[in-house]
Amino acid sequence: MADTFDVVVVGAGPGGARAARRCAQRGASVALVEKEFIGGTCLNWGCIPSKTLLASAHLLMRARSASEMGIDIPSATPNWPRIQQRRESIIAGLRKGMQGGMKSGRIAYLEGTAVVHSPTKVTVEANGQKTDLEAGKLILATGSDSIEIPSIPFDGKIVISSTEALSLLEIPKSMVIVGGGVIGCELGCVYAAMGAKVTIVEALESLLPMLDSWASRLVEREFKGLGIEALTGRKVTGVDKGASSAKVNLDDGQTIEAERVLVAVGRRAAVDRAIVSALGLEMSGPAIKVNKRMETNVPGVYAVGDAVGTTYLAHGATAEAEVAAANATGSSEEMLDYDLIPRVIFTFPEVASVGKTEAKCLAEGLDISVGKGFYKANGRSVAENDTNGQIHAIRDNAINEIVGVTMVGPLATEFVAFARTLIGTCEPIRQITFPHPTISETLEDAVHEALGELLLE
Amino acid sequence: MADTFDVVVVGAGPGGARAARRCAQRGASVALVEKEFIGGTCLNWGCIPSKTLLASAHLLMRARSASEMGIDIPSATPNWPRIQQRRESIIAGLRKGMQGGMKSGRIAYLEGTAVVHSPTKVTVEANGQKTDLEAGKLILATGSDSIEIPSIPFDGKIVISSTEALSLLEIPKSMVIVGGGVIGCELGCVYAAMGAKVTIVEALESLLPMLDSWASRLVEREFKGLGIEALTGRKVTGVDKGASSAKVNLDDGQTIEAERVLVAVGRRAAVDRAIVSALGLEMSGPAIKVNKRMETNVPGVYAVGDAVGTTYLAHGATAEAEVAAANATGSSEEMLDYDLIPRVIFTFPEVASVGKTEAKCLAEGLDISVGKGFYKANGRSVAENDTNGQIHAIRDNAINEIVGVTMVGPLATEFVAFARTLIGTCEPIRQITFPHPTISETLEDAVHEALGELLLE
Repeated sequence: MADTFDVVVVGAGPGGARAARRCAQRGASVALVEKEFIGGTCLNWGCIPSKTLLASAHLLMRARSASEMGIDIPSATPNWPRIQQRRESIIAGLRKGMQGGMKSGRIAYLEGTAVVHSPTKVTVEANGQKTDLEAGKLILATGSDSIEIPSIPFDGKIVISSTEALSLLEIPKSMVIVGGGVIGCELGCVYAAMGAKVTIVEALESLLPMLDSWASRLVEREFKGLGIEALTGRKVTGVDKGASSAKVNLDDGQTIEAERVLVAVGRRAAVDRAIVSALGLEMSGPAIKVNKRMETNVPGVYAVGDAVGTTYLAHGATAEAEVAAANATGSSEEMLDYDLIPRVIFTFPEVASVGKTEAKCLAEGLDISVGKGFYKANGRSVAENDTNGQIHAIRDNAINEIVGVTMVGPLATEFVAFARTLIGTCEPIRQITFPHPTISETLEDAVHEALGELLLE
Repeated sequence: MADTFDVVVVGAGPGGARAARRCAQRGASVALVEKEFIGGTCLNWGCIPSKTLLASAHLLMRARSASEMGIDIPSATPNWPRIQQRRESIIAGLRKGMQGGMKSGRIAYLEGTAVVHSPTKVTVEANGQKTDLEAGKLILATGSDSIEIPSIPFDGKIVISSTEALSLLEIPKSMVIVGGGVIGCELGCVYAAMGAKVTIVEALESLLPMLDSWASRLVEREFKGLGIEALTGRKVTGVDKGASSAKVNLDDGQTIEAERVLVAVGRRAAVDRAIVSALGLEMSGPAIKVNKRMETNVPGVYAVGDAVGTTYLAHGATAEAEVAAANATGSSEEMLDYDLIPRVIFTFPEVASVGKTEAKCLAEGLDISVGKGFYKANGRSVAENDTNGQIHAIRDNAINEIVGVTMVGPLATEFVAFARTLIGTCEPIRQITFPHPTISETLEDAVHEALGELLLE
């Protein structure tokens, strides 16, 4: 006999886990099925491991320039095995924490592959054992895979994806990164700081091409200082592999030799074909098609996160999970404007953006004013010896409101939710007193200037 | 013949400088008079120099625990002369920037002592030269002095104020700090990190007694880890000075020997008696009495900042300066609730608070719920190896709004303006997507729990 649940969630990444928690909190009985590790890509092969490596890399860089702040350090070197052990133990600790959360949230957490027969029937297969579930509603949060370039297939040794790049046994002497997006740029920072010769090849005209061009240019300038070579507007035509390195051929005839070739051209929604055909899911390319209520074309079946191909961000998945969970348990909610989901890049320097970019405003024909805050004019940034960067705030002059903020520099990723609260706010920014001396005053400068009230002293 | 200005501002600290800038921006002709250095206490003997020392101290501590993050550093030691040179050059650079700002803002910046004859007549005396000014309105921003304890007078060598403590020629082997408030605790962190044996003596029952008790206890616990000894509920009865050290006697009979005794029991509003009597200013103790419009009892004369004895914070002064400048140039504004001016302490760990404390809520008889965010549960805090601390958000259950936030931990001072935007907000917090993985999610956890929507996974 099948176990019956109000909601069955397939996939325990950030989207699935949040959906399960919220449904349970709203009184539903919930089963959460995961075929590999709780936490999904984010915890195991994404956000968290990359941030542990980036944190160590950042401390290494700070230590190397410590004499500028009057701290004498004779040498600072990475202990790579220790850095890798730390990554593993942090992931293990957070997995344990999440599993505890499922237990205390009264969620049935099942490890195994979900075989979906219909919107209401799921079998979980693990080690030859089968458990039948009866589902009131079904939420699919099946995640994504690294995109492979057919002419440069992954071999897991020389040509690798971000998954392998997070757990290399040694720091390579040289690395070519194919793709100058978020993943390629973050991992490029890690390995450049650790001492590898890093070359990033990006087909479009700039690194991080989704950003306004001033921000991409600023990142490119800082990357040069880190020793990262950025080859933009160039394509990789093929890779000639040797025993322990490869020659990467570019479309302009150049050849770059490297011990590792990281292909980081993005991720693609992943759903088992069997699930798609059993449910008769309508797709949009590799992604499950959903409406604003996160409903698929099949009544009672919702989908969230990377599987729907919207943001490819953990917090995008949790935002969608909130909506799906509400709708699967009797409420009625819709996803808000996706522009308001912050975009974060944990490079050196950090980059973050929320709301509209300047490029989007201009494409929409908006009359805008841009206010700028400069970290180099900020007392605490100066005190912290961390002054490279700018914050741009965009006002839509027709409605006299901040509609977008882009930040490159210290704490950008930490300030972007704050910047979000200043978009379309009902309270005049002047009523918010920013404490002195804090780096957050750089955001104040940008927003005030955009609103026509320049404050810089 | 006197030079005539719409507004004359006395004192070029954060309050005076902001008032001058804002008046000029609103079209007024402005003179700004400063008797010592542009930037006042904040730039020269307060916020900025303390933050440069704290930043070096913090890097030193991070370097010493770097092996935990897989970075091998054989030794990390302070180069005190270099740290002091850096402090001086940062101050000099920021002074130059402020002077440039005055020039570009078309403000007449006059160095010298302001002799005030009447609300409309001021003479600036410098090096025997006198310049007469005719003022339409007068804004007093004359600042504050360190409070001296009569029984332990400052001698500038062994018994010192924060001014000397920021520019010591050597790191003392030992330091007794009289007063466990903001200044004493910040400087205690600097010297403890640099290797001094630091003892803080506080007459009240806890360090940072303005905080809710959980926050003070957390700070005290962390201070113990830094090697700072906190003697609370104890008073200094006297100091026996030797040639190069002193014996500090406590009311419980204990005696502590130290090379330096830093008396940091707060600051007191400072206004020349001659100004008070020439204008006939109504005072409140040492402070100039003002109403919510920052008007003194004398028509056309305003006062802001430390001189009015309200916040003793640079950003408190600038908030008041905004109001005074508006009113001195034809607008009508009032100071908002002082609770909404963030309180920041740059100790290790950082502390910040905005809105009501729990103690204040209970004293007012409010029915409250408190939500807590724990840094140790935050993925990025774990990645950064910086997990000590908590964020508490307070909901007033009667109005279902966040009314206060207190934070102890990483980036607390940087998040507090953000927390301010969540107080009395008209937008549901659930509509704000916090990016993952950021430390700012700890604030999200606290606020969601306070609102009855626990998110922790």
